[in-house]
Amino acid sequence: MSEQNRQIMIDSLPEDQLQESNYRLETTDVPSPGDGQVLCRTLVLTVGAGTRAGLQGSASYAGAPKVNIVMNGSGVARVQHSNSDQFKPGDLVICPSGWQDYSVHDPAALSPVTNDIDPAHYLGALGTNGLTAYFGLFNVGNMKEGDTVLVSAAAGSVGHLVGQMAKIKGGRAVGITSTSEKCSLLTSQLGYDAAVSYKSPDCRADLKEACPNGVDIYFDNTGGDILEMALRRMNDHSRIVCCGVVSQYDTSNPAGGPRGIPGLLVNKRIRMEGFLVFDFAASYGKARDQMKSWIIDGQLNPLNDEFDGLEKAPAAFVDMLAGGNVGTRMIRVAD
Amino acid sequence: MSEQNRQIMIDSLPEDQLQESNYRLETTDVPSPGDGQVLCRTLVLTVGAGTRAGLQGSASYAGAPKVNIVMNGSGVARVQHSNSDQFKPGDLVICPSGWQDYSVHDPAALSPVTNDIDPAHYLGALGTNGLTAYFGLFNVGNMKEGDTVLVSAAAGSVGHLVGQMAKIKGGRAVGITSTSEKCSLLTSQLGYDAAVSYKSPDCRADLKEACPNGVDIYFDNTGGDILEMALRRMNDHSRIVCCGVVSQYDTSNPAGGPRGIPGLLVNKRIRMEGFLVFDFAASYGKARDQMKSWIIDGQLNPLNDEFDGLEKAPAAFVDMLAGGNVGTRMIRVAD
Repeated sequence: MSEQNRQIMIDSLPEDQLQESNYRLETTDVPSPGDGQVLCRTLVLTVGAGTRAGLQGSASYAGAPKVNIVMNGSGVARVQHSNSDQFKPGDLVICPSGWQDYSVHDPAALSPVTNDIDPAHYLGALGTNGLTAYFGLFNVGNMKEGDTVLVSAAAGSVGHLVGQMAKIKGGRAVGITSTSEKCSLLTSQLGYDAAVSYKSPDCRADLKEACPNGVDIYFDNTGGDILEMALRRMNDHSRIVCCGVVSQYDTSNPAGGPRGIPGLLVNKRIRMEGFLVFDFAASYGKARDQMKSWIIDGQLNPLNDEFDGLEKAPAAFVDMLAGGNVGTRMIRVAD
Repeated sequence: MSEQNRQIMIDSLPEDQLQESNYRLETTDVPSPGDGQVLCRTLVLTVGAGTRAGLQGSASYAGAPKVNIVMNGSGVARVQHSNSDQFKPGDLVICPSGWQDYSVHDPAALSPVTNDIDPAHYLGALGTNGLTAYFGLFNVGNMKEGDTVLVSAAAGSVGHLVGQMAKIKGGRAVGITSTSEKCSLLTSQLGYDAAVSYKSPDCRADLKEACPNGVDIYFDNTGGDILEMALRRMNDHSRIVCCGVVSQYDTSNPAGGPRGIPGLLVNKRIRMEGFLVFDFAASYGKARDQMKSWIIDGQLNPLNDEFDGLEKAPAAFVDMLAGGNVGTRMIRVAD
């Protein structure tokens, strides 16, 4: 076990596309927990597309961008030392660890998790990604049996779970993704009924064919041209769940909005609603229990896309923003 | 009383902006009602921005565009001759009269109205415009006391009623309109708390100043650049009621969508929802009763912007699409 604390620092803010060189590795002493605080050893880290927004020129929900701080990110960690009655060494917790080996937290920042399932799931299906898929599909999208659910970034950390949950609840799942390899993965391994590559020159026709009864819920992880294409397939009284805009994160100059807004929203009475999963925090426990039982009985198959070693985090993040990941990208930092 | 039937026909579909020359006047015999049918004499006609959409290249909710048919539009009419037990000569009805002196209908197409109020109100506050304002603000927008309600095309047929209803229910009403004259009208005659001209070079700053606590409901009658400007002022968990897109009707080549969609919808958890008033038909009666009592007790002040004579309808419509109207533009056809 490391006796030093390795940290991935934000070295500079990206001017356009994020580069590995926007980060640097530093090594410092392991921090000491203060009164009532807890020292955590990071085991697994997420790299999430949402954190890219925090590196842009204006403040987002992740706060204003800054350099010379540890890159933010959630992790599963083992309690190493505790000055709190609420935790003891060896406990597993979810914490805002950042991209580093060790972090110190007040107990209120820690969520205890059990060790009856691979703890990495707590960064995927049982973490923010799974909760986002769950509340977006069921609470914002108000999904009903028989709905056609279209998902963009469908092989991604949230998307690969949305389609599976739509199937569990009796819907038709159609995915939009980048490559034919990912399309095959969606239909052969993840139970999607159909998949479309947005890079195909025939993608509009492909999408129409994949949705013979139109679309009742479009779970939008991308925005941009894909949203514009999906808009044309929406049914009357359908819902667009605005979850993320990965097409717009990796640039400092977001493009124009999709044509057809608001005209198509009016003519088809479409509800388009943005959400942040944090607003559903009071219901996390119930949703996690449901998803855990789906994982254990084999209905939900989360894909954890692991990189080994903290120093790989910047490369893993840059590659993910370029669409390289399948499922939830995560960094295994320690055992 | 005319013994012939004058009709305003669609002579050609507009290539870009609508012109008076897209219409022609024809004179034919007064039609005869068949078994069970009713002959109606048009008294007052509406010219509504929504009907412009029916003249575009692709079908809208108003149906596919066609030439050589009577221009569509609702009217208040007096029953002239009835072959139905349900109506007798002299009854007042709302009917899909089209732009003509006489029209024949099945009884199911007629809505009887009472003569205890100027019948022209049935084309304004008590017609589709008022119902659109009412259901858009209260049912789609879910307006609550204290909400700041921003309205575009605020001096228009729907908009001038939305702001007044927001005030009746304890909200702050802010209008966006074209000219400083209309701004003065909104604040001095219609009870708006503030008004902004979108033609002012300082309109963004003006809007910010007019909405010191942000915007809880944006009632969008325009789309386009005004929607994009309003998006920047929306509060967390706010609602955008998509009612119409007058900025886009009068062209065959709709522009790009507003920048910030879907990113701002996500970060601010904004719900953006399109609606058509027809979906609320089951509740029209209750809403009309409410609005009628507001008119009678002086809380609601509908502006009826009348032109005299059927032959004025095309000019009145073209001028309205260019922003010339205040309140509900209507054509007085007969007494």
